[in-house]
Amino acid sequence: QDSYKITLLPGDGIGPEITTATVKALVAAGKTKGVTFDFDEQLLGGCAIDKEGTPWPDKTLKSCQAADSILMAAIGGPKWDGNPRELRPETGLLAMRQQLGLFANLRPAKAIPQLLDASSLKREVVEGVDIMVVRELCGDVYFGKPAGIYTDDAGVRWGQNNMIYSEPEIERIARVAMDVAQKRQGRCCSIDKANVLDVSQLWKDVVIRVHGECGQGVELSHMYVDNAAMQLVRWPKQFDTIVCGNIFGDILSDEASMLVGSLGMLPSASLPSEGPGVFEPIHGSAPDIAGTDAANPLAMILSAAMMCQYDLLQPDLAKLLEDAVEAVLDAGYRTRDIVNEGNADETLVGCKEMGDLVAAKV
Amino acid sequence: QDSYKITLLPGDGIGPEITTATVKALVAAGKTKGVTFDFDEQLLGGCAIDKEGTPWPDKTLKSCQAADSILMAAIGGPKWDGNPRELRPETGLLAMRQQLGLFANLRPAKAIPQLLDASSLKREVVEGVDIMVVRELCGDVYFGKPAGIYTDDAGVRWGQNNMIYSEPEIERIARVAMDVAQKRQGRCCSIDKANVLDVSQLWKDVVIRVHGECGQGVELSHMYVDNAAMQLVRWPKQFDTIVCGNIFGDILSDEASMLVGSLGMLPSASLPSEGPGVFEPIHGSAPDIAGTDAANPLAMILSAAMMCQYDLLQPDLAKLLEDAVEAVLDAGYRTRDIVNEGNADETLVGCKEMGDLVAAKV
Ligand SMILES: CC(C)[C@H](C(=O)O)[C@@H](O)C(=O)O
Ligand SMILES: CC(C)[C@H](C(=O)O)[C@@H](O)C(=O)O
Repeated sequence: QDSYKITLLPGDGIGPEITTATVKALVAAGKTKGVTFDFDEQLLGGCAIDKEGTPWPDKTLKSCQAADSILMAAIGGPKWDGNPRELRPETGLLAMRQQLGLFANLRPAKAIPQLLDASSLKREVVEGVDIMVVRELCGDVYFGKPAGIYTDDAGVRWGQNNMIYSEPEIERIARVAMDVAQKRQGRCCSIDKANVLDVSQLWKDVVIRVHGECGQGVELSHMYVDNAAMQLVRWPKQFDTIVCGNIFGDILSDEASMLVGSLGMLPSASLPSEGPGVFEPIHGSAPDIAGTDAANPLAMILSAAMMCQYDLLQPDLAKLLEDAVEAVLDAGYRTRDIVNEGNADETLVGCKEMGDLVAAKV
Repeated sequence: QDSYKITLLPGDGIGPEITTATVKALVAAGKTKGVTFDFDEQLLGGCAIDKEGTPWPDKTLKSCQAADSILMAAIGGPKWDGNPRELRPETGLLAMRQQLGLFANLRPAKAIPQLLDASSLKREVVEGVDIMVVRELCGDVYFGKPAGIYTDDAGVRWGQNNMIYSEPEIERIARVAMDVAQKRQGRCCSIDKANVLDVSQLWKDVVIRVHGECGQGVELSHMYVDNAAMQLVRWPKQFDTIVCGNIFGDILSDEASMLVGSLGMLPSASLPSEGPGVFEPIHGSAPDIAGTDAANPLAMILSAAMMCQYDLLQPDLAKLLEDAVEAVLDAGYRTRDIVNEGNADETLVGCKEMGDLVAAKV
């Protein structure tokens, strides 16, 4: 295949700017290999609420379903924070995950040699960190029923969400984790709270079974979520692949990404059993700097690289983009979030110029 | 009151050693003020399973209920890890929390000037960190029903635990948090995942109401749990008091305690509406070093200080113990976990000697 249909979801805040920069880099990379892209830009999040009255319009769903892959920027902002749940940007994101069956969220947290100083951790602790968090994205307390706020007969209000997993749900994410670990260093740490939670006990049992079935060469370990939150801070290099449920993964993957100190550099992939995946930077929409050309497009460019690898099966394109990002960093170019003021080897550039630089390098 | 009944729960692993050291320091402190203690040693955890066939014997409950306060060391170990849930040490701990109504868990994470280098974070990030995590301890997904593993009509296994809070449960912990914040720097950050979870939406609403009712002088903010996991790593000094539900508090309080780099130094308190509280170090039972006199008793000694402050209402005794610990650190005495080998100003001591040193200082 040498032409791909990509649904673009620029979203809110800095989303449109980093999307423009990313498209430029991606198109340039494609050109070198005779690959072209057919982009279909659609609304998701706050912009969709403003224009269509819903954070996840039908038209967007249709476009995603018809696409080879989906490239997303970032959504949300204070403008919609006071809205009722059904009119919030996040609600669109959750609907997208569920309707596209995006159950496998891959979130790498890799220390970037050029940016080690940005970490709040000591250099020797963070240098060489290379963690892949495999997070389940379609189940758990995010979607479990019963859920809601109700008043009991005595007039007392209760809020509840059900932390629930089925064996098949755990099995499919465990298979992904084994596969990922096999392609990495072969160590997989499964996170649970099995000393307290039944859902975690099932999680642990199923992960152990799947490991036996398809985890050849993978060394499986288990860690309680509270201990994992500590161990990530203490010595993150002990981890290779981490597999966890939706809410523990939400917390631990964010913690892990902050360890390496360069949020603006981290991509992610959300993959279904079949059909297109969604690729997006893990950072937010940064509404405070939107429109000022100060955003860092590199996380989204690296997300496009993950798209080339996982969805388009074009590893050469992925490598081209990743190498270009590295070359641009090596040449000292930095957006505002990662610049070291006072370091004469670094050149501050805007979002647009950063995109142009990567496009020129590929 | 100048005599107190204290139930002692030495537990497992290093528990008995640090208990002996702590009792020595506490008795010495009491002597200086004419205060005496009547200790009743009871079984909890693995030792109780071994001797009584249950991790939480009735006799222990009775002793706790009759006590002025409860001082606990640490429980658990690999020996009991394979046991069924009802024969695990943690199950005893959870039963104790629920039956004594210990809903308010106070977990300080304070950087100790003498031990800053032990942190994996940069000195400038960790220096001066002083966080108090107020964690709800009797509700949430820990105790919510329905809970269990079941097989549905199609033969699929499911595991579930209900993440549930009632308004009164949230209210009482929010009141504690306001009170704690008022006695500290007056900033309280409430943790939730209200963008996704109904139980979090209720949590947030109730915390806001309680703040309006009894939060005079407290600046209340809200943070999503994933962001909090990041912000703790990025810049922990932004936090003063943190209030959260049971599971988020489990994760974040462990993360916070690792930031300051000296787990062996951190105490905690678990308080009920009325009756005795439980005071315990946050570290585990370290079975690998049990019986070698290598344990650090200071976290338990500082827990005894918290007991003097919160349960015995003897702030002078608390201060005595805290000052003695500081003096011993200033004098360079270190147990194995906190020693800097090769620093000539430090003297390596065992658990027993550390207890003797603190007792001598008070
Ligand atoms: C915005 C929110 C619903 C979302 C989540 O909790 O999954 C986000 O935190 C993420 O990690 O993608
Ligand atoms: C041992 C376990 C049940 C307990 C908890 O999860 O509360 C522990 O992690 C703690 O924080 O005291």
